[in-house]
Amino acid sequence: MKIDVLTLFPRMFEGPMSESIIGKAVEKNLLSIDVLNFRDFSGNKHQHVDDYPYGGGAGMLLKAQPIFDAFDHLQEKHPDTKKRVILLDPAGEPFNQKKAEELAEAEHLVFICGHYEGYDERIRSIVTDEISLGDYVLTGGELGAMVVIDATVRLLPEVLGNEESAVTDSFSTGLLEHPHYTRPASYRDMDVPEVLLSGNHKLIEEWREKESLRRTLERRPDLLDHVELTDQQKNWIEEFKRS
Amino acid sequence: MKIDVLTLFPRMFEGPMSESIIGKAVEKNLLSIDVLNFRDFSGNKHQHVDDYPYGGGAGMLLKAQPIFDAFDHLQEKHPDTKKRVILLDPAGEPFNQKKAEELAEAEHLVFICGHYEGYDERIRSIVTDEISLGDYVLTGGELGAMVVIDATVRLLPEVLGNEESAVTDSFSTGLLEHPHYTRPASYRDMDVPEVLLSGNHKLIEEWREKESLRRTLERRPDLLDHVELTDQQKNWIEEFKRS
Repeated sequence: MKIDVLTLFPRMFEGPMSESIIGKAVEKNLLSIDVLNFRDFSGNKHQHVDDYPYGGGAGMLLKAQPIFDAFDHLQEKHPDTKKRVILLDPAGEPFNQKKAEELAEAEHLVFICGHYEGYDERIRSIVTDEISLGDYVLTGGELGAMVVIDATVRLLPEVLGNEESAVTDSFSTGLLEHPHYTRPASYRDMDVPEVLLSGNHKLIEEWREKESLRRTLERRPDLLDHVELTDQQKNWIEEFKRS
Repeated sequence: MKIDVLTLFPRMFEGPMSESIIGKAVEKNLLSIDVLNFRDFSGNKHQHVDDYPYGGGAGMLLKAQPIFDAFDHLQEKHPDTKKRVILLDPAGEPFNQKKAEELAEAEHLVFICGHYEGYDERIRSIVTDEISLGDYVLTGGELGAMVVIDATVRLLPEVLGNEESAVTDSFSTGLLEHPHYTRPASYRDMDVPEVLLSGNHKLIEEWREKESLRRTLERRPDLLDHVELTDQQKNWIEEFKRS
């Protein structure tokens, strides 16, 4: 997969993109990431990339021209790749695991990271996907791009090592994950549930399914609207509601 | 505000926490951030912080002990601060602007960033706030912590400069933002809406309110459930639906 990022703050990407899973994916040549400062495309000697909003109001806006010119540069450099051009914006489609799975199939992702009060609306004309991380406001699109890259890249084949696993993730089953425990069996007066020490795999599996359902019901009952429940799960829900 | 981050990947925070708004807030002494590697609290010569899950299964889990010991260290260092201890986890409360406003009132935020397949459940006993960025899975809690820090810190008094503005953000009014335009009035055959060039502030304000409503209705009608609409807004919605 090829990733290009257009940003005014390329240094922000250095740590996150070289450490952890992303860095390993780059090392293994499963991924290449280039971070481009679109200030280099400002076309004026003061390197201004922002200007006042038409119609007045607080804040500055990103101008269309530097983004268009930076994008033209990418098109020339990679004329044949199929590009998804992603704009991080609170008005975008809320990001979710399904979207990450979809982006993981792409050949070339281009991220446009805004800053300041907003963008010139015309920038949206080159964008294929407007994405919002969630219903909150960030100072720029950089962290959003990193989050989308992380969620997407970890789904690429061979990226996750043995110490991680995408199979049993939250949301892959539609439910939240059950509680996990590791050694010691007792720590600061808190004990691991006995069933997990029993060695009985059938009982352990059942406990995990039940606790996953319990946690989802308690914390995110909205997720259950999208899951087809088994009879067993329906019975458990009745049981939780009775107690 | 005081922020401490417990992580296995402190280098990830270098760029994001020194550039942009966060870096400026630290420079202005409005904020201090310390990033602590809890591997230093592993208590074993191999510095292992993870172990196999009880009951079997793929992946490794973060052990409770290094996190508890790192947290004890913070308690000793800052015995008198009122701490919010935040765990980034897909099973947490979905993060939103209201939560950012609440955290912006806090004295001391402590972030626990997991990695690998999950945490030992007992870690949750020292946590005051479990937060999920959204319904997607990341390789660790680091980017989540950065996002929550960014959304929170920008709301602190004196953090945002003139080029940004928190007042007219998406979600601060409950609606998405209207389109913005800056110079030139025509760019690559795309023109700025005439009303914005009219100088008529009443008409401009009305256009913005209407377009903000239109965008919300088209993209995120769910947000309208939480907004008390004026008669004017109700009329506009009827108009949008007719056309």
